[in-house]
Amino acid sequence: MSELRKDPVTGRWVIISTERRKRPSDFRLESVSVTPDDSCPFCEGNEEMTPRELLAHRNGSAPNTPGWKLRVVPNQFPVLRVEGTLDRQGEGLFDKMNGIGAHEVIIETPRHEETLATMGEGDVEDVLWACRERVQDLKQDRRFRYIIIFKNHGNAAGAHLDHSHSQLIALPIVPREVRDEIDGARAHYSAKERCVFCDIIRQETQESRRVIAENADMVAVAPYAPRFPFETWILPKRHQASFEDAPRHEYAALGRLLGDILRRMNKSLRLPPYNLLIHSAPLHESAAADFYHWHVEIIPTLTRVAGFEWATGFYVNPTSPEEAAEVLRELR
Amino acid sequence: MSELRKDPVTGRWVIISTERRKRPSDFRLESVSVTPDDSCPFCEGNEEMTPRELLAHRNGSAPNTPGWKLRVVPNQFPVLRVEGTLDRQGEGLFDKMNGIGAHEVIIETPRHEETLATMGEGDVEDVLWACRERVQDLKQDRRFRYIIIFKNHGNAAGAHLDHSHSQLIALPIVPREVRDEIDGARAHYSAKERCVFCDIIRQETQESRRVIAENADMVAVAPYAPRFPFETWILPKRHQASFEDAPRHEYAALGRLLGDILRRMNKSLRLPPYNLLIHSAPLHESAAADFYHWHVEIIPTLTRVAGFEWATGFYVNPTSPEEAAEVLRELR
Repeated sequence: MSELRKDPVTGRWVIISTERRKRPSDFRLESVSVTPDDSCPFCEGNEEMTPRELLAHRNGSAPNTPGWKLRVVPNQFPVLRVEGTLDRQGEGLFDKMNGIGAHEVIIETPRHEETLATMGEGDVEDVLWACRERVQDLKQDRRFRYIIIFKNHGNAAGAHLDHSHSQLIALPIVPREVRDEIDGARAHYSAKERCVFCDIIRQETQESRRVIAENADMVAVAPYAPRFPFETWILPKRHQASFEDAPRHEYAALGRLLGDILRRMNKSLRLPPYNLLIHSAPLHESAAADFYHWHVEIIPTLTRVAGFEWATGFYVNPTSPEEAAEVLRELR
Repeated sequence: MSELRKDPVTGRWVIISTERRKRPSDFRLESVSVTPDDSCPFCEGNEEMTPRELLAHRNGSAPNTPGWKLRVVPNQFPVLRVEGTLDRQGEGLFDKMNGIGAHEVIIETPRHEETLATMGEGDVEDVLWACRERVQDLKQDRRFRYIIIFKNHGNAAGAHLDHSHSQLIALPIVPREVRDEIDGARAHYSAKERCVFCDIIRQETQESRRVIAENADMVAVAPYAPRFPFETWILPKRHQASFEDAPRHEYAALGRLLGDILRRMNKSLRLPPYNLLIHSAPLHESAAADFYHWHVEIIPTLTRVAGFEWATGFYVNPTSPEEAAEVLRELR
């Protein structure tokens, strides 16, 4: 029989559907294949095709020329723009503000065919460190309330370009999914004086059924109430609200575990498209330091979201996290 | 410049992105084409391929035989099952319950190629009336807190079968998207003693920029803060919390307007896949009668949901509702 499960942070219910039970081979997958492309704006040699870089890892070469390992540039088609002052307006019943924000692209490698799963561990750490640097810079701007770092890998996951990259968007409001996590974590802390994520890590590492892999600083789990099959969270074992305040060795540990998890997914799910996101505390909400806990979420694109999900916000997941964790854990 | 807009019911913000502005011809569409299929379980003559019918519109023919205009059957692969008692359990930090519910399919026509856009108006009204009858029946079961009616049209919108059908799921909890609407509508009512949907209808019909079409009982609008391009809501002009309590002539009016809107979408968006859903008040929450207002939402599948949306619950919409309404309004 199917089971309804509640996420202990947000209170969101999901249906783990045993009637529609799916193992990795049951999904109709769109494997991600990267084809060479001379006109790729993210490839080394094509630096003039992007806006001027905000940050780069270079060995002495001049900005916006070849000779780099990683570049961060403004998005050429930003969803929000940095210029202007935040203007809030009403229109009768309705509320709006102008689209102030920042939208940047982290070009993770100069090589077109490389991915986070094939890069060296140090290179993944460097990507995370570059994200940290950009967040540290952007949080000086008091117009921003939240900075989201995310990645779309593969066309089915919403990527428009094949070349491996992540994105960063600074927002003038705290978005709803984050607000739900914040509210849930605050309520848990008020009731129990404990961080709900620390409680999750404690229970998961004791039970171990949903643990996929871990190292000294980080643990990867299939969450208890996942919206999607093979959804995976990576959490720092040490309590810390904000991604950008982590010590360097935690980025190294995350880089190692992230590469490991993505390689396991590539094997068992045959190079799946995926979305990756980093949830961190809102900017300038210092109270969140006690009760929030930054983490990474990875969502392989294996199913389609349909009417029921749009209508209810209630997800039907055909693979239990216990099964998903077992499949991924047993690979190396 | 892009604009951030807030939905007045749920408080959800969206980004209307002018940088990524899209007209109908800019979308990479997967037009829905229906191909004949002798093994379709929903076609007339194949009644033995479905579970036994719960309801049918027949002219004297025997149940589960040919000679019908519409059938309602249990879903063969239900996400929730009717049998059993609701069993709520904790697992340490986590909460679950068994998958009690009902999952039914409304087979809208005996003819494989017909759709809601090509059916007679009376036939669409009959579909709505059949949904009403099923809800009236299922709401007698006190285990259920909410009944959602929805439709996936086309593979890209999550439909597994081409033959025109809708689905109904009775749930033991009130789902999150509905709870957000309920909470928002209650807060508006507490502050102003008015239904927020009635306020929306008043402002929209006065301004008319986002009105697509209307008749005496129903109005179709592009909502002020739509998550998706060409998202369309159809609302009854008369205040009423629950779909299943509407008078017969409102189903007739909705049937006419719904067919009209779907034909306009077929013309301008070239037979798009879409999701349709009916939001109605939760069962057994009589206070909602004052502040909630049932309505239909139609979401054409034109864009992919990607990392940013999953991470934030914040949608980037490349088509403003004013543009979408203008495009749809000018067609006939």
